[in-house]
Amino acid sequence: MKTIYLDHASTTRLEPKVLEKMMPYLTDTYGNANSVHAMGREAVNGLDEARNIVAKLLGAEFNEIYFTSGGTEGDNWAIDGFTKLRGDKNKLVTSKIEHQAMLSSIDNLAPLDIQVKKIGVDSKGFINLQELKNEVDGNTYLTAVMLANNEIGTIQPIKEIASYAKEKGSYVFTDAVQAMGAIDINVKDLGVDMLSFSAHKFGGPKGVGCVYIKNSTKLGNLIVGGHQERSRRGGTSNVAGAIGLAYALKFTRENLKKDSEYITNLRNYFIDKVLSLNVGATLNGDRDNRLPNNANITFDGVNGESLLYKLDLNGVCASLGAACSAGSIEPSYVLREIGLSGVKAKSSIRFTFGKENTFEEIDGVIKILSSILK
Amino acid sequence: MKTIYLDHASTTRLEPKVLEKMMPYLTDTYGNANSVHAMGREAVNGLDEARNIVAKLLGAEFNEIYFTSGGTEGDNWAIDGFTKLRGDKNKLVTSKIEHQAMLSSIDNLAPLDIQVKKIGVDSKGFINLQELKNEVDGNTYLTAVMLANNEIGTIQPIKEIASYAKEKGSYVFTDAVQAMGAIDINVKDLGVDMLSFSAHKFGGPKGVGCVYIKNSTKLGNLIVGGHQERSRRGGTSNVAGAIGLAYALKFTRENLKKDSEYITNLRNYFIDKVLSLNVGATLNGDRDNRLPNNANITFDGVNGESLLYKLDLNGVCASLGAACSAGSIEPSYVLREIGLSGVKAKSSIRFTFGKENTFEEIDGVIKILSSILK
Repeated sequence: MKTIYLDHASTTRLEPKVLEKMMPYLTDTYGNANSVHAMGREAVNGLDEARNIVAKLLGAEFNEIYFTSGGTEGDNWAIDGFTKLRGDKNKLVTSKIEHQAMLSSIDNLAPLDIQVKKIGVDSKGFINLQELKNEVDGNTYLTAVMLANNEIGTIQPIKEIASYAKEKGSYVFTDAVQAMGAIDINVKDLGVDMLSFSAHKFGGPKGVGCVYIKNSTKLGNLIVGGHQERSRRGGTSNVAGAIGLAYALKFTRENLKKDSEYITNLRNYFIDKVLSLNVGATLNGDRDNRLPNNANITFDGVNGESLLYKLDLNGVCASLGAACSAGSIEPSYVLREIGLSGVKAKSSIRFTFGKENTFEEIDGVIKILSSILK
Repeated sequence: MKTIYLDHASTTRLEPKVLEKMMPYLTDTYGNANSVHAMGREAVNGLDEARNIVAKLLGAEFNEIYFTSGGTEGDNWAIDGFTKLRGDKNKLVTSKIEHQAMLSSIDNLAPLDIQVKKIGVDSKGFINLQELKNEVDGNTYLTAVMLANNEIGTIQPIKEIASYAKEKGSYVFTDAVQAMGAIDINVKDLGVDMLSFSAHKFGGPKGVGCVYIKNSTKLGNLIVGGHQERSRRGGTSNVAGAIGLAYALKFTRENLKKDSEYITNLRNYFIDKVLSLNVGATLNGDRDNRLPNNANITFDGVNGESLLYKLDLNGVCASLGAACSAGSIEPSYVLREIGLSGVKAKSSIRFTFGKENTFEEIDGVIKILSSILK
C-alpha cells in the first residue's frame, strides 16, 4: 500500500538537496564554531553563510538572525525574554488560538501577576482587531500574535497589528512557524520586533529553528551559557542544522510562486471534491485567506479519531489538529474558538498538502474517504 | 599542511557509522513522532530505539531518558527546573569551576533571593569535600557538581557527593557533558537524580543532548509546548539527532576500554614530551584522576593566545580553555580557582586528544611547540 502523506503541517521531508548542503558539516567540517583555529573558522564560515542567506530572504540584517533548536524554543524565548525585561509595563496581549508553545509559556507567567489578555477570533479564525486595539495600551510590553494558524491556516493581519501595537509602545512578536516557507515573509514589511520559525516545516532538518530579533530590541535570554549567537543563546552551534535551515528556506523561496500555486490548486481540488461528497463535510477557516497547504474539514456526525485511524489503515496520513497536541483528549481549542461545538471539533481532520502530492493521490484519498464515510 | 586536531573536548567528528544510523531519519523516515499515523509511528520507533539504547548504557529506565537540544539546555533545565519546584528550601550548592552554562543559569537566579554557595577546589581541581559537606543542609534543594571539568579534566567524586547530599534531602544534579563517552557512567551507581550530556562530545551530531531524570524527581520544565518527552520538553522530536546520540554512545562504549587506554597513553606521551622540553611547562589538574583525553599545560612566560595562533598557523588545533568562553578577555576562572595567577592562566593551553590522533602526530606537535617556544 502506497502512503499518501497529507500531514505537511506536522513536518516535511528533508529535501535531498538540502541534506546535500548539510553533508560537509556532518562529515569533515565538524569544528566547533566557537573554536579559535582553522577547524573553528570553517564552522564559523558555515554559520555565517546560513545567517546571511536567512537574513537576505527575510529582509533582515545579518546580526538580527539567531539560530535556536526549533519553533517551540523561539516561542518560549519570546515570552520569557520580553517578560524578563518588561520594565514597568505589565500587560501581554495575545490571541486565543496561539500554538501551545506560546500558550504554555504564557501560563508559566502566572506567578508574576502579569495581565494577560487573550483576544478572540471570528468564525474564520481572524483575530478580533477592534478588541485587540482596545486592549493594547501604554502598559502593554508585548503583543504576540501568530502569523498563520497551524490548525486552520488562517493568516492574521500582522502588519496592521504590528503597526498599531508599535504606536502604543508595545514590542511585537509573531510565531511564524506554520507560515514560513508557505508564504512570502519580509520582517521589515511586517514591522515586527521578533519572529520565530522552525526548519522542518519547509524541507529543513528537525531540531533547528531561527528567530529574527530586530536590532535594539530588548529581551532577556532563555538558554544561557557561552557567548554563541552574539551572547544571546548559549550552546555549541548546530552548523549543519543552520545550513539546512537556510538552504531549505532558499530552495523553498526560489519555487514559492510555482509551488504555492500548485499546492493551492491541489488543496482547492481536494476541498471541492470533499464538499461535494455529500457526507456532511464543511471547511473550517477562511476559504481564501489561508495557508496554501491547509484544509481543515469537519465531517458532521463522524468521530475524527476513528476516521483518522481508518484513513491510516488505508495509507493516508492526516491529523486531528496540531501534532503537538496528539494524545490530548480535549477537542481542539482552535476549533472551539471559531465556534465549533466540542463534538464538531472532534469530528474534524486537518489535511495539509505538499508539492510532492499529486492530483492522482487526491482522487485516491477522496475515494477512500467516500468508502469510509458512506 | 595536515591539520592535527587536538581539541576533542570542544567537539568531535560525527562518526561515519553514526551518520549511517541517522540517514533513514534524514531521508525517508521523516514523520513527526507526535503524529498518529504510520509515518508518525516509524518516527516513534526511532525515538524509542534511541531511548532504549541510552537507558541501557546508563543503567537507567527507558522513561528516565529525555532528549534535549544539547548540554547547555540540560544544565539550564536543571537549575531552572529544580528552582521552580524547590518548595520551602532555598539553598543551592555548586562548585566554583562549573561550566558557564551552569554558572550563567545560577546567575539568573539573582532576583529570587536564593542562597547560592559555590564550593572551591584544591590545586588539582578537586572540590573541597569538607566544605561541601558543611554547606549541604536541610535547606538545600539542589547540589549541582560537574562530573569532570571541561578545562582541566579533573573527575569529581560525584558518588560520594551524591550520597551525602541525598542523605541531607537535597536533589543532586551532575553536568556530565565532558565526561560522557570518555569514562564509564552508570547513573544508579553515581546516585544522582539528574545528569546531562551532549552528543557531539563523543562522535554524535551537534544540536542534540540528553538528560537522565530519575523517576519521581520533581522539577519544572524549561521548554514548554506540546506533550513531547512525556510532557517534560516541548518541541518536535529530533529523531535523527536522538538516534545519532544513542549510537554514538553505543559505539563509544563498545570500544571504551581500548580507546581510553590508547588515548591515555597518547596523552601521557604528549605530557611527558612537553614537560621534558624545558620550556617552563607545567601540567594543570591531577596527573591521574583526570579525563583520558585532557592535557592542560601552562607555558610559563608565554602568551597563550599568541601560542595558540602560532600552533594554528602550523595546522595544530588546540584551545585556550572552554570553546564556549572563546572571545572572553578574562583569564580562565577554572585555572584561577586552582590557584594560577591571571598571567599564568593566560599562558595555558588545553590539548584534548581523540582516538584518531596518532603518536606521529604528537611527535609533530612537540616539534612545532619546541620550535615556537625556543
